[in-house]
Amino acid sequence: MTRIAICAPGKRLDREDADAVQQLVTGEAGIDLQFHPQCFARHGHFAGSDEERLAAFVECANDASFDAVWFANGGYGSNRIAADAVRQLGAAANAKRFLGYSDTGYLLAALYKAGIGQPAHGPMAGDIRREYGSGAIRRALDWMAGGDEGLEPSLDGAPAAAFNLMTLAMLCGTQLQPDLSGHVVMVEEVSEHLYAVDRLFFHITQHLPDIAGLRLGRISDVPENDRPFGASDVEIAESWCAKAGIAFLGRADIGHDAANRIVPFGVAGRRQRQ
Amino acid sequence: MTRIAICAPGKRLDREDADAVQQLVTGEAGIDLQFHPQCFARHGHFAGSDEERLAAFVECANDASFDAVWFANGGYGSNRIAADAVRQLGAAANAKRFLGYSDTGYLLAALYKAGIGQPAHGPMAGDIRREYGSGAIRRALDWMAGGDEGLEPSLDGAPAAAFNLMTLAMLCGTQLQPDLSGHVVMVEEVSEHLYAVDRLFFHITQHLPDIAGLRLGRISDVPENDRPFGASDVEIAESWCAKAGIAFLGRADIGHDAANRIVPFGVAGRRQRQ
Repeated sequence: MTRIAICAPGKRLDREDADAVQQLVTGEAGIDLQFHPQCFARHGHFAGSDEERLAAFVECANDASFDAVWFANGGYGSNRIAADAVRQLGAAANAKRFLGYSDTGYLLAALYKAGIGQPAHGPMAGDIRREYGSGAIRRALDWMAGGDEGLEPSLDGAPAAAFNLMTLAMLCGTQLQPDLSGHVVMVEEVSEHLYAVDRLFFHITQHLPDIAGLRLGRISDVPENDRPFGASDVEIAESWCAKAGIAFLGRADIGHDAANRIVPFGVAGRRQRQ
Repeated sequence: MTRIAICAPGKRLDREDADAVQQLVTGEAGIDLQFHPQCFARHGHFAGSDEERLAAFVECANDASFDAVWFANGGYGSNRIAADAVRQLGAAANAKRFLGYSDTGYLLAALYKAGIGQPAHGPMAGDIRREYGSGAIRRALDWMAGGDEGLEPSLDGAPAAAFNLMTLAMLCGTQLQPDLSGHVVMVEEVSEHLYAVDRLFFHITQHLPDIAGLRLGRISDVPENDRPFGASDVEIAESWCAKAGIAFLGRADIGHDAANRIVPFGVAGRRQRQ
């Protein structure tokens, strides 16, 4: 039995989405999902106040009866609680897997920096809303139960990490930034203009000169601008990597979509296979 | 006679806007405006390729017959040429005033870091399009001619600098970031959601813990979101300043509008009055 606690460090989850995810595992003997009530709280933009979201995450992570903490949604807000959160974690958190992406990358980064548990970039409960969302949910559940079928295919035993591009840019140089030297860093983005993607690449490549290389996930739902940018997403990534002396390693199979594959932080993702 | 060279490090200028600005100074004996042809160039998103924009800026800045370099527009792109630009500047650039805001903040930052000339945050030629835009243009021209009527009213002899919030966030930690310790830093933003403003404040306050204080310019044209953020722009600024131990000093009279006042980088703006 894999027991999974779900909380929402940023945006709240709709009850119907939680029900749909719960429905998906009904009858599966190996999975027990526990949605923390905080998932459904409301406080302005957030799933409850900073204090509520922090308390729920800490409660889930410190409960030894759970094997994993799964994030309900991204949105915005995990940066507001991440530093406090890792300070409050005890031994029970070390044995856990933590799974999410998008805004929850701040928490994954803080956990990785603190050496707590196994954080990974991958699907969240809220992805049930997407087309083919059930596939994303099953991929997430499989990984939290110890499987590796959903791992990002380029992972080869080198240390890796994956982030939403904006999230990575905003945590660079802050107290949440882990040491990513020697890591293959994968980034993805959604709903940003290509000029903003270019600007974010300027920022992250200057902050991360000593990574092992960069892989580009999907840059999706790019809004139409009043004039074309003049370069593709791959050309943007290649160009800034070249300027910073970073190896551009090609595409990564991650993104704000149901196909989003799992990238455990560090080398843990492949240890099982060796 | 004040001779002013105009170039476009990011977005191009429309001919009609240049004509309207030129019209405004017709018959004024003290001002000579020279629009570099590069202002009207097109290359995808930009007013010409990186090479063209770089060459035009360097040409304007290194021409001893000009007293000031005025930026035509913001948009996006000055970060792509700023580091190369300052490396190519000679003695003639040191005697000049440089004026712009928004995306051109990357260039202002790089100039200030390199100790070249007198960079300042203030209206650009493209502001002629705004309601009451002619007032912004006259304020800019007055300052470039040596006046101080348009200075931001809180300037009191302490070192200061002003930036678009996104621009400041993107240059933090990069080779373009000047030493802002002991400075009053003013920020303004346009067309960003409040959650994005909150996220940017998280980033900049962690990067700038030793500034003398922060002032908040106008946060304008905030897009409507599907849910209210739950805090005002001032509350956001106060809250992040408090967390970082930065003094929040109140409002600044800057913004993406015709009322945008002038903030010379450093203490130069007030030297004239002492």
